[in-house]
Amino acid sequence: MACVNTDNTANIIGSPRELRLMCREGRWRAPTAGQAPGYVQTNVAILPRDLAFDFLVFCQRNPKPCPLVEVLESGVTEPKLTSPGADIRTDVPLYRIYRNGVLSGEVEDILGEWRDDLVTFLLGCSFTFETAMMAAGLPLRHVEQNRNVSMYRTNIPTVPAGVFSGPMVVSMRPIPHNQVVRAVQVTSRFPGVHGAPVHIGDPEVIGIRDLAHPDYGDAVDIYEGEVPVFWACGVTPQAAAVQSKPSLMLTHSPGHMFVTDVRDEHLAVL
Amino acid sequence: MACVNTDNTANIIGSPRELRLMCREGRWRAPTAGQAPGYVQTNVAILPRDLAFDFLVFCQRNPKPCPLVEVLESGVTEPKLTSPGADIRTDVPLYRIYRNGVLSGEVEDILGEWRDDLVTFLLGCSFTFETAMMAAGLPLRHVEQNRNVSMYRTNIPTVPAGVFSGPMVVSMRPIPHNQVVRAVQVTSRFPGVHGAPVHIGDPEVIGIRDLAHPDYGDAVDIYEGEVPVFWACGVTPQAAAVQSKPSLMLTHSPGHMFVTDVRDEHLAVL
Repeated sequence: MACVNTDNTANIIGSPRELRLMCREGRWRAPTAGQAPGYVQTNVAILPRDLAFDFLVFCQRNPKPCPLVEVLESGVTEPKLTSPGADIRTDVPLYRIYRNGVLSGEVEDILGEWRDDLVTFLLGCSFTFETAMMAAGLPLRHVEQNRNVSMYRTNIPTVPAGVFSGPMVVSMRPIPHNQVVRAVQVTSRFPGVHGAPVHIGDPEVIGIRDLAHPDYGDAVDIYEGEVPVFWACGVTPQAAAVQSKPSLMLTHSPGHMFVTDVRDEHLAVL
Repeated sequence: MACVNTDNTANIIGSPRELRLMCREGRWRAPTAGQAPGYVQTNVAILPRDLAFDFLVFCQRNPKPCPLVEVLESGVTEPKLTSPGADIRTDVPLYRIYRNGVLSGEVEDILGEWRDDLVTFLLGCSFTFETAMMAAGLPLRHVEQNRNVSMYRTNIPTVPAGVFSGPMVVSMRPIPHNQVVRAVQVTSRFPGVHGAPVHIGDPEVIGIRDLAHPDYGDAVDIYEGEVPVFWACGVTPQAAAVQSKPSLMLTHSPGHMFVTDVRDEHLAVL
């Protein structure tokens, strides 16, 4: 469920509704980074109803890696609250299908997989706070270097719930030491999309041995005078869900997010 | 699920653990207002597992009236995350039992009612932000007048989820006009316990006809130069739950809250 920043030289689609329609009609299969600027993009996790309560409790207990933006009732395909008129089965650029915890395919829609006992979870994505970071003049090295953000498994346990558990996965962004406080302040305003960092500085303290070898995404350069800063990452719930080996789990493909009609600032506090 | 402030001339019990033990041993059956100062007190709602997912989604969709502090897995009686060692069946001063949506009794423990399919929800309570308001020098008229806070049904709909729906219930506190902004600021820091007001001023705008006749609690005096300020209230989820006529619902008795080990400041943002 990681958000992946990818170079996007195509035109910028300004409207979430238009972007979703393009997905639905097969005219958009690319990553969504930079599209519909100012609107909340979300990770998608769809699970059978018998796992939904446990997964919802897992998210409630772990709000930093698993910030809930919307949960749909069993069988419902329209995220009415955040994206009226959308259809979660067709409006994501690319989907992944997991069977018994194993990735079994990547598809352009999930109409053929849909069942009335499926529950859709939309989870906040760091694109929202990255927009705020850029606005505050903070560097985003993975964007500058046109790479995916670096992500690492940590020794920070999540709080288990029912069948779900596992380590927290974090994303890392190098920040000049005189801007670290600002980075904390800016991202603290967005608790609904991972919020404040979970760690600043020495990676070994949270069980990361080598920043040059991320567990997910790409390594980025860290310059003299920069501090690695770590945020809870949306890969966490996906990793926890896969580990529980659900008979069926449907997700977006990394970087190919569901774009809502919610404005980034709507998720900000104070 | 309203928090009720009641005069309490007994000694102040400082420790949540001690207060819970006194409940368990039958030595405390009084309201908890003012007890264990600085610790989060919670509304308690216990529902059968078949309603728990819908209720959890209802809370997720209506975070202002239904701020989740902890959700326990089905059958679990110890709120391990917020109150290790506690037992939700014995550690509340007084409970209410609802059968098919009708209040059927008030009891000192729920050991005899417990079933393995029951799911416990702990929801934040305005006591937390009232402590912060007092610290900021804001008046709390219902405390000054030794009454229960005034609560009203509004025309603000909650966002329905599954079988749960109903109007938002609000509590009202009169605030001098030159302190209204401060009241917004202070309570905004506590989104986990109802947070910022939902309305300031004219009660008719939110469907309240007569402030002198609250739907729950007591009327309080409003002085010249004061503005009625309205906050989402924990009666909302209880009213919504009762309306769905669950076969069994167990709650605390108004004002007789479950006291956690979580410090008020732990729920504050920024």
